Amino acid sequence: MSLEQFNIIESTLREGEQFVNAFFTLDQKIEIARLLDAFGVEYLELTTPCASPQSEIDCRAIASLGLRARTLTHTRCAMEDVRRAVGTGVSGVDVVIGTSSYLREFSHGKSIAEIIGMAQEVVGWLKTQSVEVRFSTEDSLRSEPEDLYRVYAAVDQMGVDRVGIADTVGIGNPRQIYELVSGLHRRVRAGIEFHGHNDTGCAIANAFAALEAGASYIDTSVLGIGERNGITALGGLIARLYAVSPALVGKYNLPLLLELDRLVAGLVRVDIPFNNYVTGFSAFTHKAGIHAKAVLNNPSTYEVLRPEDFGLTRYIHIAHRLTGWNAVRYRAGQLGLELSDAQVRAVTDQIKRLSDERELALDEVDGLLMAAIQSVQSREEISA
Amino acid sequence: MSLEQFNIIESTLREGEQFVNAFFTLDQKIEIARLLDAFGVEYLELTTPCASPQSEIDCRAIASLGLRARTLTHTRCAMEDVRRAVGTGVSGVDVVIGTSSYLREFSHGKSIAEIIGMAQEVVGWLKTQSVEVRFSTEDSLRSEPEDLYRVYAAVDQMGVDRVGIADTVGIGNPRQIYELVSGLHRRVRAGIEFHGHNDTGCAIANAFAALEAGASYIDTSVLGIGERNGITALGGLIARLYAVSPALVGKYNLPLLLELDRLVAGLVRVDIPFNNYVTGFSAFTHKAGIHAKAVLNNPSTYEVLRPEDFGLTRYIHIAHRLTGWNAVRYRAGQLGLELSDAQVRAVTDQIKRLSDERELALDEVDGLLMAAIQSVQSREEISA
Repeated sequence: MSLEQFNIIESTLREGEQFVNAFFTLDQKIEIARLLDAFGVEYLELTTPCASPQSEIDCRAIASLGLRARTLTHTRCAMEDVRRAVGTGVSGVDVVIGTSSYLREFSHGKSIAEIIGMAQEVVGWLKTQSVEVRFSTEDSLRSEPEDLYRVYAAVDQMGVDRVGIADTVGIGNPRQIYELVSGLHRRVRAGIEFHGHNDTGCAIANAFAALEAGASYIDTSVLGIGERNGITALGGLIARLYAVSPALVGKYNLPLLLELDRLVAGLVRVDIPFNNYVTGFSAFTHKAGIHAKAVLNNPSTYEVLRPEDFGLTRYIHIAHRLTGWNAVRYRAGQLGLELSDAQVRAVTDQIKRLSDERELALDEVDGLLMAAIQSVQSREEISA
Repeated sequence: MSLEQFNIIESTLREGEQFVNAFFTLDQKIEIARLLDAFGVEYLELTTPCASPQSEIDCRAIASLGLRARTLTHTRCAMEDVRRAVGTGVSGVDVVIGTSSYLREFSHGKSIAEIIGMAQEVVGWLKTQSVEVRFSTEDSLRSEPEDLYRVYAAVDQMGVDRVGIADTVGIGNPRQIYELVSGLHRRVRAGIEFHGHNDTGCAIANAFAALEAGASYIDTSVLGIGERNGITALGGLIARLYAVSPALVGKYNLPLLLELDRLVAGLVRVDIPFNNYVTGFSAFTHKAGIHAKAVLNNPSTYEVLRPEDFGLTRYIHIAHRLTGWNAVRYRAGQLGLELSDAQVRAVTDQIKRLSDERELALDEVDGLLMAAIQSVQSREEISA
């Protein structure tokens, strides 16, 4: 079961740089790289040195930081590109070429036989260098499976370390990914990497399906940033694996996730989405009375992620019309107020009536509970 | 194949009201309901009239608007609740009860036999009313499948219209959902509904897996709002099905999606996430040179969703270090400038060098192209 031995290829510094708002200086790239390294990702993928003069400087600089994470750069399947990539001192080179009929017709114009020929030259040379070699097709989901398997079998025979499947346009669904990766797993001895875009909302589920089918390398980026609406988000993948078993992600420093999301969101000038996995502001909020009651009894009732494990806390919202008396009783307890069940139910009705008219704040709820206890005390005084 | 006959049960006005920031007045609820109706969803699910006095008024008001969409309300499996639900005039009642060991221990404390007994009373009565009846378990993914199937078989025999599977905590993954729904599909004649939370990033993929396995009703909310980080987003589900075939979602008014996302985001005071399906600002942006080149040749190369079908437009970003000369040549063409390939390549190098130092704006790129054409013209004048 490869879920136990998966690796993250963190591509904020490659795919993430393709996000429309991204412009990272070298200092910012180093800050991101160091924080990802502290979090514990196994690989950092960097923009090709062929993109621009500064990209080459950046690639060299990050490769020489002495991080625990291995560094990779991502290049076209061309000798000039991979020579320059190796020259930067990275630990590995991720070679990519499009195999779909779309890319063959509208992008590079090569046949499958030509692609294999190019791969032989490029991979053959890379194997003489002491670097890891990954060979990936692009737009794999819209390629003919037989074409794909021919290319992968050829590069597998050349001894590549990893073969990559890329859902470049975000069209794949989990059952397709599972089938494609399973078929590949039977055919190659190389490790399998999955890279998935999120245009149709399946990037996390597809990455998970790939792992279930035998992949052991998943590409991520912080907040999922990348071309268009991006790829598998680092935090989302972590959440998915944590839900299977927290031990699967025990090798990572989970409380750094919030810092990573905040850092990258700030640098690319976006807000962390309100509904982001783990770090969105609503991720650990509970509202409906029936949820609040059960979470107070046992948080696992409605929480598959323990916020404490991510250095976060839950929030139970009680000042609204969907509230329930159990949650209100809990709040009375927090305030040290001893009210009977009947009294708590009466305050709950007051909260519902008031919040039907306008939004209530927690201190107003507290005020209602205090008023209830005072009316109890004054009745006791009268009867005393 | 149920993908062709699926229905959306739009729950912004029930699950969405459980989002921590949601407070909808009746007027706002009506605005949301009318816009969802214009979009074309088949059902609107409303907060139970038992939640508060205003919730009952709202439920009656929306049920009597005369919308094309059928109205449902969502209640506990209790006689007092369903009587009140039917009294509001809705077209159907969605009954729910927890079956997981967590909910049985920490929430309602009932055994499976007791649950079936309660269902018999409640469903038996509802069947005497002229309403649709849905019976759902809660936290279905952490329930024993045998327990679930016993309950579903019992209510199916009572003649419920739909049975519901709810991944209340967002723990399910697509292969699990597919298996659970397939098993249910073999056992009941009722329609199957799926409700899935998104804590671990699978809400869209799980809904799709449910449809593949024989479900024909999916719960959604606008932007996915709901308890915690929410459920299957309406726009995300649409994008997923569109990727299979645009005809599957041809029955909806797709350009209203942006208006819906904007309306609800405004009412609950959040921004539309930057990476939201279809309507996030980055959904149709292209940046890397190799992507831009191919998209200019044929947008389908890197786009699985046609922005035009959603009333939106694509944006090709060229003023950055990852740009390519084909995209720059296209821009020159847009400006009516006739430059040779060598000249366009020279301008591309200038763009890369400048954008290595700082962020460039499009008008600066245009300036470089204009300068290139002027230098051509002045050379021509000198030689004339």
